[in-house]
Amino acid sequence: MPSRSTSRWDWVPFPEPGAPNSTMRMSVKSREPVSSHKGSPRYRRPRVRSNLGSPYAILRATLGGKPCGASTAMKKIARRNAFYAQSGGVTAVINASACGVIETARAHKSAIANVYAGRDGIIGALTEELIDTGKESAAAIRALRSTPAGAFGSCRYKLKSLEKNRREYERLIEVFRAHDIAWFFYNGGGDSADTCFKVSQLSQSLGYPLQAIHVPKTVDNDLPITDCCPGFGSVAKYVAVSALEASFDVRSMARTSTKVFVLEVMGRHAGWIAAAGGLVEDHGIPVVILFPEIEFDRERFIAKVDALVKHHGYCTVVVSEGCHYADGRFLAEQGTRDAFGHAQLGGAAPIVAGLVRQHLKYKFH
Amino acid sequence: MPSRSTSRWDWVPFPEPGAPNSTMRMSVKSREPVSSHKGSPRYRRPRVRSNLGSPYAILRATLGGKPCGASTAMKKIARRNAFYAQSGGVTAVINASACGVIETARAHKSAIANVYAGRDGIIGALTEELIDTGKESAAAIRALRSTPAGAFGSCRYKLKSLEKNRREYERLIEVFRAHDIAWFFYNGGGDSADTCFKVSQLSQSLGYPLQAIHVPKTVDNDLPITDCCPGFGSVAKYVAVSALEASFDVRSMARTSTKVFVLEVMGRHAGWIAAAGGLVEDHGIPVVILFPEIEFDRERFIAKVDALVKHHGYCTVVVSEGCHYADGRFLAEQGTRDAFGHAQLGGAAPIVAGLVRQHLKYKFH
Repeated sequence: MPSRSTSRWDWVPFPEPGAPNSTMRMSVKSREPVSSHKGSPRYRRPRVRSNLGSPYAILRATLGGKPCGASTAMKKIARRNAFYAQSGGVTAVINASACGVIETARAHKSAIANVYAGRDGIIGALTEELIDTGKESAAAIRALRSTPAGAFGSCRYKLKSLEKNRREYERLIEVFRAHDIAWFFYNGGGDSADTCFKVSQLSQSLGYPLQAIHVPKTVDNDLPITDCCPGFGSVAKYVAVSALEASFDVRSMARTSTKVFVLEVMGRHAGWIAAAGGLVEDHGIPVVILFPEIEFDRERFIAKVDALVKHHGYCTVVVSEGCHYADGRFLAEQGTRDAFGHAQLGGAAPIVAGLVRQHLKYKFH
Repeated sequence: MPSRSTSRWDWVPFPEPGAPNSTMRMSVKSREPVSSHKGSPRYRRPRVRSNLGSPYAILRATLGGKPCGASTAMKKIARRNAFYAQSGGVTAVINASACGVIETARAHKSAIANVYAGRDGIIGALTEELIDTGKESAAAIRALRSTPAGAFGSCRYKLKSLEKNRREYERLIEVFRAHDIAWFFYNGGGDSADTCFKVSQLSQSLGYPLQAIHVPKTVDNDLPITDCCPGFGSVAKYVAVSALEASFDVRSMARTSTKVFVLEVMGRHAGWIAAAGGLVEDHGIPVVILFPEIEFDRERFIAKVDALVKHHGYCTVVVSEGCHYADGRFLAEQGTRDAFGHAQLGGAAPIVAGLVRQHLKYKFH
């Protein structure tokens, strides 16, 4: 068992009821990431080899002292480990995906010996900080389904191309080899899928072929081929419910007060989340949705809001952060400036609200 | 029964399971508010008198065709009506307060004949648009507990002083007299409490003494005497949970990405909501709370955030919209004012985030 792995419980704040609230924690000598020397990262040699690293260790670990037939021993020797890591912004359900990977691995014990999770994503592989999920009970793994944030830590770290940073890939392979990793599960968005592909290709050219599997995750629901990304559903529900509640609030006091409610949502290039905000229409709320896929037409927008307010007394506007003009400029780019002369943050909503105030004089929220 | 009253079901989108999903709707001839002539509002003469307006009607309505003793009849004659209205921004539980008023009135049928709700707050009294809650079933009234927004409509409308607009008060009394209103329940914040007090005083000077009762409602929890305003609890829970979830997210990816999470919360002069955001500390989150009650010290703030990030790797900042400098200027002053003449706020978070970026170079959300 790797001596430098840590327990999931260093990370998880909310185990589900009935789950154990602590397991053996193994001390981590150094939690520092990659040490740097003259600009290029330096890594420690993997000092810890998996118990399954040598044929002798495999036999000892899997067979114990019990005698058995040669065929059984051969079957068990084939079992190797999987590596799982979280990447980029966490979603409400990224840990449910982790649960899926680990529980499925456990359901195939004849093929997969153990799952090691990278601490802080792929960084954990580079620095050899692995969380040994094999130490966790079934209840603890099940608790991942309702664990917020990234249970093992995530990162925003893009692997460069092999030409630019061969050392990094060699390091990955070095660590994977030390821990007998045969499967590389990477849980993230488009960049992570790309990393997955690179690792898969380069592992072959470096003589240690890995099966690299991308586990989809984006709130934007913008991954090719993937119909519905885990993460999108939670955000869609949150946005739809929030937009509806706020629209009801505005409707109930529009006669003398706020007439336009503006909600900015995520989605730089994909309008799925904005579309979810548009679900308020099913409950009779007059709504204008500004998609990133449709060029923003200022006059048309103002006329539409005015018509809705004149007819219904109020309206809701759902604007995607990626909403842009015909020339490609994002609405958020022409924002106001603060006391220090910096472009003010908050993006598209203040611009849209400003148009409502300037041209229609309606109070907004 | 007033012919111009409307059913609650014109307003309520979500009856609780099991509640009837429609009741008789009475058409409203004109939904327009006060018509205006040369700047001063003109009101229609109340054309509809309550069934209980004449002794004969009272006897007919309450006793039906059944003979009864004079003492019982006399007792029923004493029953008069209550008026209830919602004011200002709605809370998550303002309809629960409405439910409390109506159910309590029903529990005292010997004293209170019926509760009429003002459509769109006090405006409904001025324009004689009353919702007859007596038409609603017990289940429908119970459903108010979980009905979002303002079920009867709210308003931001400030009654002027008697000197400035005597006509308005006379109109109120005219309508209350027409519908035999003896109790005036006004559900709102500090300004509504003030209106309540005025109505109570002026009703006496206008010869129609009313019992005016303020039903407290503010998310800020800033009403004098009131220990805990209905509305504050829901917001406190929402802010505490949202701050905690976002803090966990930031914590799980702080190593390579966002290190400071900034959350702006309501509370112009009262820091109760900001304090609720500070509850994340109970879960080990390092947090800086910027209260409206404490003058903002820029250097101290920057030093504190820097120290927390250096020690924990990340931190959360909860900033109240009412956070201000020593000279009284709000961090967030937008320049616009609401119907009551208060400065409209919004935008303390971008200022705070700007400081973090400018002085500490930490990525924030």
